Amino acid sequence: MSVQLPLAPGSAIGILGGGQLGRMLALAAARLGFDVVVLERQADSPAGRTAAKLIVADYKDEAALADLAGLTGLVTYEFENVPASSVDWLAAHGVEVAPGARALAVAQDRFEEKTFLNAHGAPTVAFAPADTPQEAVKAVAKLGAPALMKTRREGYDGKGQRWVEHAPDAAAAFAELGGVPVIVEAAAEFVRELSVIAARGRDGAMAVYPLAENHHEHGILRRSIAPARASQATAEQAERIAARVLSGLDYVGVIGIELFEMADGRLLVNEIAPRVHNTGHWTQDGCEVDQFEQHIRAIAGWPLGPTKPIAQVEMLNLLGEEADAWVRFAAEPETRIHLYGKHGARPGRKMGHLNRVRPL
Amino acid sequence: MSVQLPLAPGSAIGILGGGQLGRMLALAAARLGFDVVVLERQADSPAGRTAAKLIVADYKDEAALADLAGLTGLVTYEFENVPASSVDWLAAHGVEVAPGARALAVAQDRFEEKTFLNAHGAPTVAFAPADTPQEAVKAVAKLGAPALMKTRREGYDGKGQRWVEHAPDAAAAFAELGGVPVIVEAAAEFVRELSVIAARGRDGAMAVYPLAENHHEHGILRRSIAPARASQATAEQAERIAARVLSGLDYVGVIGIELFEMADGRLLVNEIAPRVHNTGHWTQDGCEVDQFEQHIRAIAGWPLGPTKPIAQVEMLNLLGEEADAWVRFAAEPETRIHLYGKHGARPGRKMGHLNRVRPL
Repeated sequence: MSVQLPLAPGSAIGILGGGQLGRMLALAAARLGFDVVVLERQADSPAGRTAAKLIVADYKDEAALADLAGLTGLVTYEFENVPASSVDWLAAHGVEVAPGARALAVAQDRFEEKTFLNAHGAPTVAFAPADTPQEAVKAVAKLGAPALMKTRREGYDGKGQRWVEHAPDAAAAFAELGGVPVIVEAAAEFVRELSVIAARGRDGAMAVYPLAENHHEHGILRRSIAPARASQATAEQAERIAARVLSGLDYVGVIGIELFEMADGRLLVNEIAPRVHNTGHWTQDGCEVDQFEQHIRAIAGWPLGPTKPIAQVEMLNLLGEEADAWVRFAAEPETRIHLYGKHGARPGRKMGHLNRVRPL
Repeated sequence: MSVQLPLAPGSAIGILGGGQLGRMLALAAARLGFDVVVLERQADSPAGRTAAKLIVADYKDEAALADLAGLTGLVTYEFENVPASSVDWLAAHGVEVAPGARALAVAQDRFEEKTFLNAHGAPTVAFAPADTPQEAVKAVAKLGAPALMKTRREGYDGKGQRWVEHAPDAAAAFAELGGVPVIVEAAAEFVRELSVIAARGRDGAMAVYPLAENHHEHGILRRSIAPARASQATAEQAERIAARVLSGLDYVGVIGIELFEMADGRLLVNEIAPRVHNTGHWTQDGCEVDQFEQHIRAIAGWPLGPTKPIAQVEMLNLLGEEADAWVRFAAEPETRIHLYGKHGARPGRKMGHLNRVRPL
């Protein structure tokens, strides 16, 4: 189905992936009058239960992709590890996919990602690729130990990475990560982790949200505070980085950019996620238009919405059984509750989040 | 299915009716982690396209009601003309229906409604029932012309009512309204129309939103301004009326109460709607917790949320083709867009609404 942009309300939007990000995208799309079609492997998924239509299939299933293409001319995704071949198939069959294949290719490979970032004036830590144990040892020796080894592809929430304390240990770490191509990163001696959520429309217009300050535990985001306390210079640095990344990728949609703030005030890019982002959940109760509606506006060719903050927010992820205290959270007047409807609270599983708001 | 309250996230909530109120209730329920099952006559409906499951059937279809009861132990409705027999059937089969049968019975019959209101200290205009043309003429003669004649049952958005300019005309008006039982109301010489949205939880706790000032055209709401400019005394009068109505009905859920403000400052109740209400749409962008989430919290046995205003809102209904200007509205930074995904913009049909916000 070919698509006419800006996309009119009443039209359908496809989402690859049925997790919580897809669910919150679906709710935002519905608020703007769109129907949502979700393609997802599981019959029971957070986004599937809020979609107008659900296609249960592997992302590479061409019959399923053809079904999707028959229902909608505009498709997005909620996770960056969607197969590139699926996006290519959809694009080849006349479906507009946003963000595009270039953003996906860059985000799916950590070496490509950092190479792209540096080439576009977005600084990162020093890094080197390694395809063999020997290359891995050499890379750590060159960058200095301790260094962080990550698989080039896949991996999220701290999975698929190892700290290497001494260069000779790099061979064992390489094997532990499965013997696949890796990237070795110099340790970033950052003072705090920040992130910036930004959007780019089809006309090239950009919108940048205020910075969030993020706190991780065991590689999983626990808490964001936003708008983060930051100097004007820091905010401008983040905006400049966002603009370079968005333009460099000819991006359409919302992007999440994780940053390290260094002792000297410089911002380094840790990673980019070509989608709505956990560190942007605070915008749901803290900004005029949140990241989910913003993404839908951008991909649908609508004007971008304002990103002005309307409240100070502490966003807390609810992991595993933490979500069981919902009735207590509901009694807190400052707490806005967002639950994903997941059945089964495995330890560490993201079940929902809270936005605790107070006046700016 | 019997239900345990407070209802845990991941559980299903049933909604009778698939219109825009059902859609916005479904979106609010999903945000809190609930699944929604909609029972609706049309295969294609605003709420049906956001529900986890849709049952397409007449509201009186017992097989469909049994399906619904098999999927969820908690059911609510989005319009007050849902058949009382359906609610009775569900209740008899162990389903918790909120608001309850008493609220529905009172709201479905304008004579019962005003009788209930006066009995509970909520003042209305003078009124009289009429079952025959002769009684209708007598009623107008007694109350004074002009008077407003309304069918006791059904009717919404100005349908099912006639102004009677002279008592003898009442017989013709009675015939025009179908010869069914009517209520005749004295003309209310009000200075403006206000409304109050309020909620009552299962524990009897109440929460009242700030007043909205409403403007109708041809019997259809065009515009609400909220919080309305009103004296402390007026606000307290509205809160007192809301408390009396909610307690008198042993109510659970959100209620909309339409008010006339008289020249002497008194508030009269025009009508009550046992559901979320068009004049409460401003709360979506103007209050900490909106009327839709509030209704879900109340019926699910959760603590009620705060009703504090966070912005000044002008709510505008988009009727028929007015919604076609969506791309222009999307470019207005102060405008929050809510569209219902209806296919086919018949004149006067509610297609969506805008909340234009500014700081309090």
